[in-house]
Amino acid sequence: MRVDGSPGALVDAADRGLAYAHGVFETIRVWRGKPVYLEEHLLRLVRGCDRLGIRTDGLVERLRRDLDAELGSAGADAVAKIVVTAGPGARGYRYDPAGQLTRIVSILPYVADVDAATSGIAVSCCATRLGLNPALAGIKHLARIEQVLGAGEILPGCVEGLMFDIEDYVVEGTRSNVFAVIEDELTTPRLDRAGVEGIMRERIILQEGATVRRITRAELLGATELLVCNSVFGILAVTRLHVGSDVVTLPFGARTRDIASRIGFPQSA
Amino acid sequence: MRVDGSPGALVDAADRGLAYAHGVFETIRVWRGKPVYLEEHLLRLVRGCDRLGIRTDGLVERLRRDLDAELGSAGADAVAKIVVTAGPGARGYRYDPAGQLTRIVSILPYVADVDAATSGIAVSCCATRLGLNPALAGIKHLARIEQVLGAGEILPGCVEGLMFDIEDYVVEGTRSNVFAVIEDELTTPRLDRAGVEGIMRERIILQEGATVRRITRAELLGATELLVCNSVFGILAVTRLHVGSDVVTLPFGARTRDIASRIGFPQSA
Repeated sequence: MRVDGSPGALVDAADRGLAYAHGVFETIRVWRGKPVYLEEHLLRLVRGCDRLGIRTDGLVERLRRDLDAELGSAGADAVAKIVVTAGPGARGYRYDPAGQLTRIVSILPYVADVDAATSGIAVSCCATRLGLNPALAGIKHLARIEQVLGAGEILPGCVEGLMFDIEDYVVEGTRSNVFAVIEDELTTPRLDRAGVEGIMRERIILQEGATVRRITRAELLGATELLVCNSVFGILAVTRLHVGSDVVTLPFGARTRDIASRIGFPQSA
Repeated sequence: MRVDGSPGALVDAADRGLAYAHGVFETIRVWRGKPVYLEEHLLRLVRGCDRLGIRTDGLVERLRRDLDAELGSAGADAVAKIVVTAGPGARGYRYDPAGQLTRIVSILPYVADVDAATSGIAVSCCATRLGLNPALAGIKHLARIEQVLGAGEILPGCVEGLMFDIEDYVVEGTRSNVFAVIEDELTTPRLDRAGVEGIMRERIILQEGATVRRITRAELLGATELLVCNSVFGILAVTRLHVGSDVVTLPFGARTRDIASRIGFPQSA
């Protein structure tokens, strides 16, 4: 782990990332020693900083150096995590953009917790609702309490939990985005009020085309294919969806298989 | 500053408070060497932990010891800040409640940035809207990005910014709660969808009685008295309210003066 460019694992206890969640993060798959979709991740990180008022002069160059230094000692298959915060500060919400920010770069083991491409996965529905928050929607910021609560509600045997907003539209998984084939159309939730705009989601929309709109719970349950995706585990077909005590069975559909094969993401180690 | 009971100013860079905002905090006025409303603050902190799934066995006793140790070296008039997080953890939202949590206790200078009891203050309206988030409403959790953005929008000469939700109801100040006298009735916003349930707000409701309901922007602008409160600066009369380029002038009302005098909080150092 590297903090502000030097080997280390400690940060100032008054860091604004800890005090106020004032920062962003990226979680990047490392495959054959290289970070996958690195440019997209860095671009999203900079955009997130811009929305949170964090100055990014020289940031990307520094992060590249941090990553290079850390990757040297990493295995071929791993996960890189980048955290950028508004840095240490005095008490109080008011932020001085001239202040020093904090960079934390670490390489973590890639845990293949899902038997990906072959069999499909089981997913449950979380009880915790995502709030409606247009000012922060889309950003991968550090305020992730809802996802923590959601992750604690995932049923045993399920590898992901779907989260709905307070108006009962499906938004995303706790750590993934979701696509559904609804009336033959590849569809994914609009993320203008809640949710994280995932890199893999963006790739799929750009490459495959998709209808981006609100999706009701009933529409989700009537989908003919369902997949979750993120830029660590790639694309996973959902073949069992737990809704309360009911289980909906879905096929490992042709559409999902085609998308996964065209995206060509390293599905398993 | 004390981290987990020992003098120190550093925390694990993988702390869940930093990674996911998984934690809570309290900011407590210290007056004549004693924390004011300490029991209420500790109770709210424990309630917040409960809602975030953080175990609190023995926590309050440890925090009292931390505070005592830090207060020994503090001045008579100060601010104590307590942060409790879900502690260091592996990557991933899923939380092991058996894990060790993190306690950070610090004593900071009390800055009398407002000429309180005498003249009243100017307040502006923030553009950033608070999201609607029933799962987290009321809790003083670490996810405070909205307040950071709001604080950056406070007009020069104003000491606080009022924040409205996405449906244009007033919720609170960036670092305070708000009470308005509307049609002769002391009224304060409901905080079931957004906002922090402040200790001073609770004291005022319990002692003075108040109608707790949604308050529209129009109602706020028509208020005959307006006050903001928190447990650091106490109660402040708002005598100028900036709304866009307009300024509404309000009296330093009798009601506000009475409430402040009955609450008897140390208004200035």
